[in-house]
Amino acid sequence: MNHRLDVPALQNRLAAFAAARHWQPHHTPKNLAAALSVEASELLEIFQWLTPEESGRVMADPETAHRVTDEVADVLAYLLQFCEGLGIDPLAALAAKIDRNELRFPAPESHKAPNNPSTNTESHSSE
Amino acid sequence: MNHRLDVPALQNRLAAFAAARHWQPHHTPKNLAAALSVEASELLEIFQWLTPEESGRVMADPETAHRVTDEVADVLAYLLQFCEGLGIDPLAALAAKIDRNELRFPAPESHKAPNNPSTNTESHSSE
Amino acid sequence: MNHRLDVPALQNRLAAFAAARHWQPHHTPKNLAAALSVEASELLEIFQWLTPEESGRVMADPETAHRVTDEVADVLAYLLQFCEGLGIDPLAALAAKIDRNELRFPAPESHKAPNNPSTNTESHSSE
Amino acid sequence: MNHRLDVPALQNRLAAFAAARHWQPHHTPKNLAAALSVEASELLEIFQWLTPEESGRVMADPETAHRVTDEVADVLAYLLQFCEGLGIDPLAALAAKIDRNELRFPAPESHKAPNNPSTNTESHSSE
Repeated sequence: MNHRLDVPALQNRLAAFAAARHWQPHHTPKNLAAALSVEASELLEIFQWLTPEESGRVMADPETAHRVTDEVADVLAYLLQFCEGLGIDPLAALAAKIDRNELRFPAPESHKAPNNPSTNTESHSSE
Repeated sequence: MNHRLDVPALQNRLAAFAAARHWQPHHTPKNLAAALSVEASELLEIFQWLTPEESGRVMADPETAHRVTDEVADVLAYLLQFCEGLGIDPLAALAAKIDRNELRFPAPESHKAPNNPSTNTESHSSE
Repeated sequence: MNHRLDVPALQNRLAAFAAARHWQPHHTPKNLAAALSVEASELLEIFQWLTPEESGRVMADPETAHRVTDEVADVLAYLLQFCEGLGIDPLAALAAKIDRNELRFPAPESHKAPNNPSTNTESHSSE
Repeated sequence: MNHRLDVPALQNRLAAFAAARHWQPHHTPKNLAAALSVEASELLEIFQWLTPEESGRVMADPETAHRVTDEVADVLAYLLQFCEGLGIDPLAALAAKIDRNELRFPAPESHKAPNNPSTNTESHSSE
């Protein structure tokens, strides 16, 4: 059903799912942040021994494709539950972050491709 | 602008941002999965020494609230870029996962609250 | 045998184990860092839904105790292989770090117990 | 001093360091597992955008070499404190794990080099 493919609707379904199983006492922001981190690592585990090229082809194998998609769902599930618990709008948070990054990291002129990945690291990972 | 608060629109903005900075060669699925995991850990770092109760109050301090919101944005940014690269619809993936979990983990009857967190762990973290 | 309980001896055993299975091409520092991170998350997974008190009792259950010990072994295995590959002496690295931290974070006088966990966070996680 | 380069001696120094700063109440096994995971991710962050080849050269740059060594120290510090708190001998745990893995994953004959990284993944990451 289409209404499920909407962030607030998914958050409602996740909240109902947790409530029906009496999991709310375990769903502190700290625990959800830990669970989010654990699920993100389970996604990374699929890629840990792959070459860059192999990593681009994971969806060609149906079993691996299912596993990747499943871990994506787990990461998103904990991210949405974390946000719901703390009253954070994740899409608004990301839009605001992109706005800030566009000011902070102006696009280089087209002839200056970066050749230093460590520079990229800084740009990627900090505000 | 409203169109920014939509997953595909945010993915378009992220793709344009990366392209303008010539980051695509670094954005292999493997690297994006690593970056997602790193950002999830940065979110966890905020909570690592907090008690469960303290973790519920992080939004009361404006500076911590900003930091939490910012890390949420980073996690979502890498998750959406990862999904874009592999052709995964994250909202559909989550909706399908909830569907499966509703079949696999029927809600207990209301008088049987779980008292064994390790049981919950299994339910939470595996399909 | 006693000689196995020594860091260089364990590194030799790990290197021989990997070589016999032709894993060296996969054991780049990047991949070993990813694997270390994944194993650390598997250890965290055991604790993610536990209260602080429950987390102190994990060794009372033999099965959980085995699982915890096993994940500790995995974390150490990847840490030692990572260090071997890059020529880092992990025990010397830690001794040097403690030396630096003793200078950088002087112990408070005994009557000034910290009451702000976020201060501890900074002290713990950065040099 | 030589005695510092010994696991029990390092554990003693770490325990004294934490005690002098009144950090023990924060050092639950759960929190230390989270901190270990966070530090492992900080190590991974250094490598996240690097090619496999670049990742093999990180020690050539003194500043990056220092950063890598420092994160190794942080990972080991939390691993040793975690083990100390739960009465786990990390070197014995690793020796026992290698013993088990030698039985479970017999070395292939020399002419059968693995060509399927996902097979290796299983061997690497589970007992």
